Amino acid sequence: MDTLEIIRSLAVIIIFSKFFGLCARKIKAPEVAGEIIAGLLIGPSVFNFVQKGDFIAGMAEIGVILLMFSAGLDTNINQLKKSGIKATILACVGVAVPFIGGFLLYSYFYGFSKPGSEHFTIALFIGCILTATSVSITVQALKELGKISTEVGTTIMSAAIIDDVIGIIVLTAVISTKSSNTSIGMVAFKTILFFVLVLILGYLCFRLMEIIDERYPKTRRIPILGLFLAFSLSYIADKYFGVADITGAFCAGVILSSLRDSDYIERKMDINSYMIFGPVFFTSIGLQTDLKKLDMTILLFSICFVIVGLLCKVVGCGITAKLEGYNLNDSLKIGVGMMTRGEVALIVAQRGIKYGLDSKFFTSVILLIVISSILTPIILKALYAKEESVVETNA
Amino acid sequence: MDTLEIIRSLAVIIIFSKFFGLCARKIKAPEVAGEIIAGLLIGPSVFNFVQKGDFIAGMAEIGVILLMFSAGLDTNINQLKKSGIKATILACVGVAVPFIGGFLLYSYFYGFSKPGSEHFTIALFIGCILTATSVSITVQALKELGKISTEVGTTIMSAAIIDDVIGIIVLTAVISTKSSNTSIGMVAFKTILFFVLVLILGYLCFRLMEIIDERYPKTRRIPILGLFLAFSLSYIADKYFGVADITGAFCAGVILSSLRDSDYIERKMDINSYMIFGPVFFTSIGLQTDLKKLDMTILLFSICFVIVGLLCKVVGCGITAKLEGYNLNDSLKIGVGMMTRGEVALIVAQRGIKYGLDSKFFTSVILLIVISSILTPIILKALYAKEESVVETNA
Repeated sequence: MDTLEIIRSLAVIIIFSKFFGLCARKIKAPEVAGEIIAGLLIGPSVFNFVQKGDFIAGMAEIGVILLMFSAGLDTNINQLKKSGIKATILACVGVAVPFIGGFLLYSYFYGFSKPGSEHFTIALFIGCILTATSVSITVQALKELGKISTEVGTTIMSAAIIDDVIGIIVLTAVISTKSSNTSIGMVAFKTILFFVLVLILGYLCFRLMEIIDERYPKTRRIPILGLFLAFSLSYIADKYFGVADITGAFCAGVILSSLRDSDYIERKMDINSYMIFGPVFFTSIGLQTDLKKLDMTILLFSICFVIVGLLCKVVGCGITAKLEGYNLNDSLKIGVGMMTRGEVALIVAQRGIKYGLDSKFFTSVILLIVISSILTPIILKALYAKEESVVETNA
Repeated sequence: MDTLEIIRSLAVIIIFSKFFGLCARKIKAPEVAGEIIAGLLIGPSVFNFVQKGDFIAGMAEIGVILLMFSAGLDTNINQLKKSGIKATILACVGVAVPFIGGFLLYSYFYGFSKPGSEHFTIALFIGCILTATSVSITVQALKELGKISTEVGTTIMSAAIIDDVIGIIVLTAVISTKSSNTSIGMVAFKTILFFVLVLILGYLCFRLMEIIDERYPKTRRIPILGLFLAFSLSYIADKYFGVADITGAFCAGVILSSLRDSDYIERKMDINSYMIFGPVFFTSIGLQTDLKKLDMTILLFSICFVIVGLLCKVVGCGITAKLEGYNLNDSLKIGVGMMTRGEVALIVAQRGIKYGLDSKFFTSVILLIVISSILTPIILKALYAKEESVVETNA
């Protein structure tokens, strides 16, 4: 792809993704859904305006690293510590149930396979895709209802953040088993070694950055050093530990999340993300999806995938919340609040491509994201309205 | 270059360019000089940490488009109109004298050639490199002296901005004569046609953007639409009119420079620039320069190039200012104020590579930038100090 072609592709990607992103927002769907649809339109499925060459692929990779770095920066470690055990248990169940659900669903459709085979790995990936709740969409929904600082709101938020972390660990484990030729023991050892490194390196980097941040607050060097850490950890994770590069980026974000200027870093990253790299990443997912490949099986699978994806979270988290002592209505709210899916599901699916996951499954993921993020705010609103009417009747 | 290699390269580029950029600032040299030196160090000349592959080249191209778009946005059309004829004449002489000086210098060193030959084009490029004063470095110098809003300050600023525009026109003319197979008449026709298109399209885009800006001030869509315009005009300029893509980006910036939110767009662009694309661009210049290629001729040439570059501006602009009625001291200030060179010189040199300019000439350009931007503030300070001591003696 020559430079002129790159410039043309970027111009097309930017205008289409922004336009459809705005359209999506107008109908209360998440912007990313619009950006993916833009990719479908300009890709091989419809107009074929843009080919996905090496350059676009590289930009998309940077895009996903920036996204995961931002997600890490967004992690509020103190809030996690406070909400403690309850949210952690919720998150664990909220990861385990959909993971098993996704695994079983794929195996039911495409046959159960032996551990180690490609189908087995793909089934694990389908499970992985379902694990992470979309923090951003849930935050948005709770914000609009004005319920973000209630007990239920905090619990949902904390569990959503924790399940990102657990989801990433599960993903790391799944990838390591496949990508490495060594034994499972070796993989586990290297993964643990990586997290130990992150703890040590993280502590040192955090202290160093704290000193720099103290002396030069809100200067350009802060986000630039952050970006350097994100790229370095991504590289080290993948190259030396067989851990996904996005895990490295996420860890870099978590390391810096308690920094006084972490918001400042995140804002700068977000500008880079939404201007160029983000649109390129989400559009490139659409570019990879060829709608002509779709058949009845995948359509049927997609419908079941969405149902399983939603129910596993509602049932898993709802029952856990009830067992933890919440009343029925609150338990339902927690279950529904946890069912949104977003960027992380796409990122996991994208990663799966490397390990044999067919790009036709993007359709299922996109469908899940769109439906879950339209349904969640509506159902939450209804649940809160019902509660208030009950309160009024009693009064 | 695989994705992992890209991530590694970016990490190395970001940390080195930032570190050396800061070092440069500490010794009052421009940051870009530090970034280029970083490129020299990590490139083939010294450590060979990073290879300049297609991906880095593509990122660098986006970087230069963003830089030129920013430069266009920075153009204050109203200030240009006010300072009017005097500054325009200054700028014209300030472009013409160094252009001829550079052309003659190259021809003296490497032989005079017939129009149309490669050596002739290279000589024209060497002339082009010397035309544009660095607005940013001059602004910085005048700001530090607190003299930016004086009559002399405004004149220097305006002339520096105008000579960017004239410099771009000269560059466009030089490139068009070379890159097109058609007659010079056709080239001139297409170039004029391009600027007519820019006028019409520019007017329409500006009106449209004004409406959007009115309804949605300071929203993400404003800089994103700006970026789209920059990429589109770059592509159209190069593809359909044989005009340099950076000219298109510059025009896009000028079109939007009178927008109420132009500062807002510029800030967002700057963040994209300084975080990733800018460092990649300036570092990639260092990456392209192989110091092992240097010989005595080029060293001697570089020294003469710096002397010619500085003297042509001081003499050309100084004499013109004197003829326009400024006193001797003010004329000298104007001449010295105009002699800084910066990004645009590098961008022109970078462009020249495509047309046969050897990358060894980067050394000369880098030397000129470093020396001019160290000397200008020092001499200006001395001139202002001298004036004040004269005023005090008289009082």
